[in-house]
Parts: sequence; structure tokens; C-alpha cells
Amino acid sequence: MNTTTILISEVGPRDGLQSVKATMPTADKLRWISALHAAGLREIEVGSFVPARLLPQLADTAEVVAHALTLPGLTVLALVPNLRGAQAALAAGVHKITVPVSASPAHCMANVRKSPQAMVEEVRLIDALRRRVAPQVGLEAAISTAFGCNLQGAVPEDEVIRLAVQCAGAGADDVGLSDTTGHANPAQVSRLFTRLRAEIGHQAGAAHMHNTRGLGLANCLAAYEAGVRTFDASLAGLGGCPYAPGASGNVVTEDLVFMFEAMGIATGIDLTRLIAARAPLQAGLPGEPLYGMTPEAGLPHGWTPTAP
Amino acid sequence: MNTTTILISEVGPRDGLQSVKATMPTADKLRWISALHAAGLREIEVGSFVPARLLPQLADTAEVVAHALTLPGLTVLALVPNLRGAQAALAAGVHKITVPVSASPAHCMANVRKSPQAMVEEVRLIDALRRRVAPQVGLEAAISTAFGCNLQGAVPEDEVIRLAVQCAGAGADDVGLSDTTGHANPAQVSRLFTRLRAEIGHQAGAAHMHNTRGLGLANCLAAYEAGVRTFDASLAGLGGCPYAPGASGNVVTEDLVFMFEAMGIATGIDLTRLIAARAPLQAGLPGEPLYGMTPEAGLPHGWTPTAP
Repeated sequence: MNTTTILISEVGPRDGLQSVKATMPTADKLRWISALHAAGLREIEVGSFVPARLLPQLADTAEVVAHALTLPGLTVLALVPNLRGAQAALAAGVHKITVPVSASPAHCMANVRKSPQAMVEEVRLIDALRRRVAPQVGLEAAISTAFGCNLQGAVPEDEVIRLAVQCAGAGADDVGLSDTTGHANPAQVSRLFTRLRAEIGHQAGAAHMHNTRGLGLANCLAAYEAGVRTFDASLAGLGGCPYAPGASGNVVTEDLVFMFEAMGIATGIDLTRLIAARAPLQAGLPGEPLYGMTPEAGLPHGWTPTAP
Repeated sequence: MNTTTILISEVGPRDGLQSVKATMPTADKLRWISALHAAGLREIEVGSFVPARLLPQLADTAEVVAHALTLPGLTVLALVPNLRGAQAALAAGVHKITVPVSASPAHCMANVRKSPQAMVEEVRLIDALRRRVAPQVGLEAAISTAFGCNLQGAVPEDEVIRLAVQCAGAGADDVGLSDTTGHANPAQVSRLFTRLRAEIGHQAGAAHMHNTRGLGLANCLAAYEAGVRTFDASLAGLGGCPYAPGASGNVVTEDLVFMFEAMGIATGIDLTRLIAARAPLQAGLPGEPLYGMTPEAGLPHGWTPTAP
């Protein structure tokens, strides 16, 4: 079999939960993450190591990491905004750290109170730390607002690529591009990921797309065609950014998996179990709206998933 | 300027209205169609010529056509299921007729009580009629369930192409492919439109995509990349098929226009006015849910449309 395989990285427990007002009880988070794992997800961003006063919804991240580490074959990812967060993440035992480096100075300041340049230095410090204490841990930089910003408007593509190259040079294993505020279009996605790959080769990382204006799947398709093989997504389309006004949910994991599997691209994910993982999410966030067209429509008559 | 230009063909007044239980009052239809025209739409499928007992929502199609004919530069399109419908459409003065020819025998029978082969013969009769009485009128065949069917499951691609070739030979000016039930995926869309173009060249017609499982825009992107330049869409994603269980709304015109304009592909449509055209739609169908992400999120900071 010469089936292409891609990695869907579930970010709902971090990107999703940080953007809803309610706090999901820890026990519900653990059940939800177990259900995601049971559906076949093999990378989950389970939380952020940020001060609890800023994101009380994620204050239990260390406990969530401890549970996620018990799930076989799962890469446990956490977001950290700075060196202190990285120390906590490493202490908790995560497999991989992701650091947001915003290409929009306005958003970067609002999000982490640092300039983009200062964030590159933070990546360098985090890399030095993990090399010293936990060299097996992965380090990813995610260039936020890479396709536009609600605060500053257009973001120069040269600036995005320059920052990505700096992050790769500062020690990030891979550098992804994030459409934090749903500005991206397929032509731009294709252009930027092609440039990214030309500049940093195998260090070119994930596409993190939002569905703010409905273009999430089209943008993922364009990224796939430009060679991207890792895609962030959020079950039921939960997500957004508390510091980017108007940003709304991530690409819906269920619809993204349906698209790729229907195309004959294996995700390793069982769609029926994935849709079932909405139940523990809803149980933990009663009343929260869940998005996604595939769960509503059901799988089509004659559906067969792609063998990995 | 070497901007690519595409044609968005609005099908809401036909595909949308046939699939909602309520009947929009004629005066509201006229206001809605005028608002769509004011937003820059230059092709609108305004109704169907079918017996009123089957689709009472569209019983006023002749009156709607008469109004649409007064709007400058607008191509007025109507669906007809058979020769009798074509006679009524020509009498009403439409510019173009579209005939649904389903590639799934089960759906074809449920939809028009004829076999696909009998529908090809109907296309031949309709072509002979219009050549006799109104040779300037366009004739399009739309291969329904071209990507799968809720009744029969998978639809063989060879069968779709064979039927399309037969329709082209029977006198259709162009032949489009319709994802009536939301089964399509981008790889399949790309494959089928590429084959269609190889077989019938410039007679290859529109992509008519539904958003049943969220893939509508991704499928339109794939069709665009395969050379398609006409796209059916429905304002607020209204639509479906009363004879295809589980079929849900069309691609949302607002999101489709946003995608193409953001990519630098001119549609000639003013997005702000297009979003404003939801008001007369909602006024005529109070309580009906309207879909679309772009209207909800608004246009992004720094938005500039593509000059045609």
C-alpha cells in the first residue's frame, strides 16, 4: 500500500478550552482526552503552562498531562509562552512543547507581552533548557497571525518567513504557521507553506487553521497540496484566541478527518469513535455549542475509511 | 490586469426555496432577487417549472422570471425536469434552462420518475424545441449525484462521464457536475472535472457543490484547480433536495465569494451588499436558519476585494 499518511494534532483541550468562558472539570477533561485517544488521535495538545490567573480554564494542565502520559502511543503536547512555562512543562513530563511566536507585533504583545523578536530569544532559551534537562522532548514554534491579524490587519509575508527562519535557527525542531484570526485563503496558504519549505526544509511544521470565515478545510487542502502533513484541528470546532478579538473556532477535527479519509489519505482515526468523543466534551461543557457538519449529517451511504 | 474572473451562479431561489417547508411570498422573492442582482450576481436560477402540486414553493416561477428579466445584465436561469417544463420556461422568457440528469438511477427515478437514459432523451427533445422556438436560449445539463448518492451509495465515475458525454451529444451547451448529497471530496472532484474537460472540452460546465459535511469550499477549490470557472452557490447556504434524504444546504455564496476574492480571483460581487441580501431572504422566510461563517465573522481587518 502506498497510502499517504498524515498526522492530525488535536488542539481542543488547549485552544478550545482556553476560549470558552466555562472551565471544564478535570475529570471530564481526562475522559475527553481518553476518548480522543481511543478514536486514534496520536498527538494531543492537552493544555498550556501559563499562570492560572490568566487562564483558569487550564490551571490543571499538569494533572491533565499526567493522565495523558498513561495513554499508549500518544504524543503529549503543551503550549508554553515563555521559559518559566517550559520549566513547568518539562517538570510535568510532556513529550513536546509548542511556543507561539506571533508575526504581528500588536498580537504578540497582547498575547504574551513580548515582541516577536523577544519571543525568538525565548525559543532559544527554551531550546537550551530542554537540551540540558530533557533532550528527547520536542520543541515546535508556531508562527501566530501568520496570515493576517485582527489588530494590525495584513501581516507581511516576508516578515512571517523571516521569523520562521529565526525560530528554526533558535532551536525549534519544527515551525508551523497559524491562522489565528481566520484571515487565510488557499492561495496565501499555498504560497507561505511553499516558501517555508524552501527556507527550512524538513523543519517546516504544522498548518493550524481556523474556520472563522468557513475556509478552514479549503486552507488545509491547500496546505496539503503544498506538502504539509501535520494539521491542527479541534473537536467540534472549539477554539479561538482570547487575545484576538473576533477570532473563532478551529478547523473541526471531524470534518477534517472526513475530508482526508474520503480523499484516500489515511489519518489513523476512526470517525465513528471520533464523533463519539463529542459526548464527553459536551458532558464537561454543558450548553456549549458544538460545531461540525459531518457529525450532523452522519457518514455517507457506502462510506469506507482509508486503510493506513 | 490579468485577474482571473469566475462566475458565481446563485441557486438559492430554486435549490434553496425548494428545500424549505415554508413558501416565500412572491413579493419577497422579487425583493431578494433584486438584492442579489444589486450585489453583482449576474446569473441566478430563479425557480423550477414543475407542477405546483409537487413544489408549491416554486409555483410562482413564471412571475419571478418576469421580474428577473427586468434586471440589467442578469442571466435568468430556470430548472426544468422535462419537455413540458421547458415549454413553460421558454414561454416565460428565461435566458437559460438547466435539466437535472441524475447519474444514480435510484435518485433519477425518485427525482423525476425517469431513468438517466430517458433523461438524456429529454435533453434531446428540449434542445430540438429551443432550436425551433428560441435558439438564443442556453441549455445546461446538470449531472446530479455525480459524486455519490444517499439512495444507491457510490456512483461509478465511468457512468457519470458516460452520461455527461451523452448529454453534450444530445444538445446541451454545457454539462455540469452536482454533488446533490454532499458525498464529494476534493480528490474525486479534481478527477471527475479533469475527465469531464478531457471528454467534452469547453462544454464542461459548473460545479454544484453542497456543504453537507463541510467540504463545500474545499471541493470548489479543487474544481477551480481543475479548470472550472462557474460555481453554483446559495445565499445563506439554503438548499438540499427534497428527494434525496439527508441532503443539506448548498455551498454558502458569501463564504465562496470571500474565498475567491481573498485569493485574488474576481467574482464581480460586492461582499457587503451580498451580506445585505440576507435581510430580504430572512424577511421572506422568518425563522429559517441562515448559514455562513463570513456574515457572522464580518470581513477581516484590512480587507480589499479583487478588482475585476
